[in-house]
Amino acid sequence: MPKIDRDQLEDICVTALQAAGTSEADARVVADHLVDNDTLGHHSHGVLRLREYVDAIDRGELIPDAGPRIVTESASTAQIDGNWAFGQVVAEFASDLAIEKARTAGIGSVTIRRVKHIGRLGRYAEKAAGRDMASIIFTCGGGHGINQAPFGGTERRLNSNPVAMSFPSALEGPYLMDMATSVVAEGKVRMYRFRGEQTPTGWILDSDGNPTTNPADFYEGGTILPLGRDEGHKGYALAFMVDLFGGVLSGGGIPGDPTDSFSNDSMIIVLDPQRFVPIDEAKRRASIMTEHIKDTRLRDESRPIMYPGEIEARARTANRDKPIELVEATWEGILSVLRQFSIPSGRWHVVG
Amino acid sequence: MPKIDRDQLEDICVTALQAAGTSEADARVVADHLVDNDTLGHHSHGVLRLREYVDAIDRGELIPDAGPRIVTESASTAQIDGNWAFGQVVAEFASDLAIEKARTAGIGSVTIRRVKHIGRLGRYAEKAAGRDMASIIFTCGGGHGINQAPFGGTERRLNSNPVAMSFPSALEGPYLMDMATSVVAEGKVRMYRFRGEQTPTGWILDSDGNPTTNPADFYEGGTILPLGRDEGHKGYALAFMVDLFGGVLSGGGIPGDPTDSFSNDSMIIVLDPQRFVPIDEAKRRASIMTEHIKDTRLRDESRPIMYPGEIEARARTANRDKPIELVEATWEGILSVLRQFSIPSGRWHVVG
Repeated sequence: MPKIDRDQLEDICVTALQAAGTSEADARVVADHLVDNDTLGHHSHGVLRLREYVDAIDRGELIPDAGPRIVTESASTAQIDGNWAFGQVVAEFASDLAIEKARTAGIGSVTIRRVKHIGRLGRYAEKAAGRDMASIIFTCGGGHGINQAPFGGTERRLNSNPVAMSFPSALEGPYLMDMATSVVAEGKVRMYRFRGEQTPTGWILDSDGNPTTNPADFYEGGTILPLGRDEGHKGYALAFMVDLFGGVLSGGGIPGDPTDSFSNDSMIIVLDPQRFVPIDEAKRRASIMTEHIKDTRLRDESRPIMYPGEIEARARTANRDKPIELVEATWEGILSVLRQFSIPSGRWHVVG
Repeated sequence: MPKIDRDQLEDICVTALQAAGTSEADARVVADHLVDNDTLGHHSHGVLRLREYVDAIDRGELIPDAGPRIVTESASTAQIDGNWAFGQVVAEFASDLAIEKARTAGIGSVTIRRVKHIGRLGRYAEKAAGRDMASIIFTCGGGHGINQAPFGGTERRLNSNPVAMSFPSALEGPYLMDMATSVVAEGKVRMYRFRGEQTPTGWILDSDGNPTTNPADFYEGGTILPLGRDEGHKGYALAFMVDLFGGVLSGGGIPGDPTDSFSNDSMIIVLDPQRFVPIDEAKRRASIMTEHIKDTRLRDESRPIMYPGEIEARARTANRDKPIELVEATWEGILSVLRQFSIPSGRWHVVG
């Protein structure tokens, strides 16, 4: 597998994105997000996406030199039109605005619409926590990327509609929840297919509505089930709420009335803990709770209990200085983007 | 089973609560909540609780003539001390305040602590939706009522930590999610034991940490698992976040550092949809989405797809004018409270 240093990989992305019409500042935002996700091992949201983003630009769905615009605003709320700019650029702008509102008003709620793939929600949630804020993020697909069945149904009707929440901590990383409201995100099913493995029972139905463990069945008209399996009414309810908060309130798209193309319509809520308790006291008490919860007899001695976000925090620390390994297909995608813009790849140092 | 009209049952509760030292106004709030939950079929949060509440008063844990006090407040936030008053009284006060803040500031976030059992979260969420507001509610047990294992653990460390969300609708009832973040609420396990039935696999572990389907094992030192079964890291993360938002930010109790007695420490977030889209437009688009999601091939033809909250809306309509049937033990509990205060039960008309 090709191996490349983080800085080099980021530079490739910045160069390619600029060639595709993105400003240097925006290209840096997007490249940083992509490479950071690879660093964390979340390759489905990593540089693998570069080819897809450039394709979206070529189709006119993503406007690389567009930027977000505030449509309506109050001290604690704002609705933002993304103008089909890069999702990362729009969502960074929106989370900065929500953080600012939380700082001045105690709590801020900002929606975004007409916005391409915003990537890993955890990134925005981590940023809020890093600034001593708590956050709740609801993200839908604007009526696109439909892959989840409602509870009791056998056909796709909802996006995997992720939810993220974060809270400041005194630990290695912030408290971070970042999860699809479907039993798994589509990327996981894709990984099983890629590796030629069967998916666990309870994840997917085939196109006839029958349970299956063959990941290919999902791609041939099947569907992913909601989080919770037999208690899937809970995951389904969460997914439904994400479309209401993220899709309806953003003025974006919804199942049954989608936007022109895929749009990560979202609501970002940021809350200042200091309006409630001093921040050091909040962190101290969160640590007491964390320690108490972790100190529990284990199901499997080799798998300690983690606080939400601990996996990401550890991965970031462990992989900070390591080169990033890319699967061949991802590297090929990057090379094809470079070729498209006649950028010689020899400028960067790649091993393997 | 004893049957009694709604009004009569409410009157019994008001009379008993007043005899226990509650003002008429507060007694009416609590009685209305309890009877409404029985009307919806949520008997675990119904008049069954009367005996428990009076016991808490007798122990000095619940102060029947206390009321909530605002500790800190801003245009969009408030922290409330419940002063160990009735949970329903405190949570009604807090949700009214959060609704008022949402109306004036766009979004309001209010915490409560030192507050007894607040009952069914959905009640407060429904109220917000009925006033054309959206809501998110996080409720923990102040470090008490610990019955859920962290993902990967085999011992109880968290409360069932429920989460509720609501959104206004143009349908029979509001959109309403109201769920434990454990795979099931403890009340469901109790029902299985009461009926002498085995619980589904994947709900509980026994005191040795082994999976079991015997509900009695839970009560002998076992634990309930988090929502999600094999994907229980998601339910666990949600449960963890509930303790951070509801427990840490309320200044209340947490696992590892509990309050003096059980306290439904919570955060209630209310948001005005009109800051984002006109309310009729929001409801219209939510209806389009609802219709689209419901129109899905079913797994079981006899079980149509419901929108979140539809079960409650239908139950309220169907049971509005029906007498409430109580199991013998619940009725006995009520009679014992009446006896305690020397109130003759003959004043009310009970059948069976």
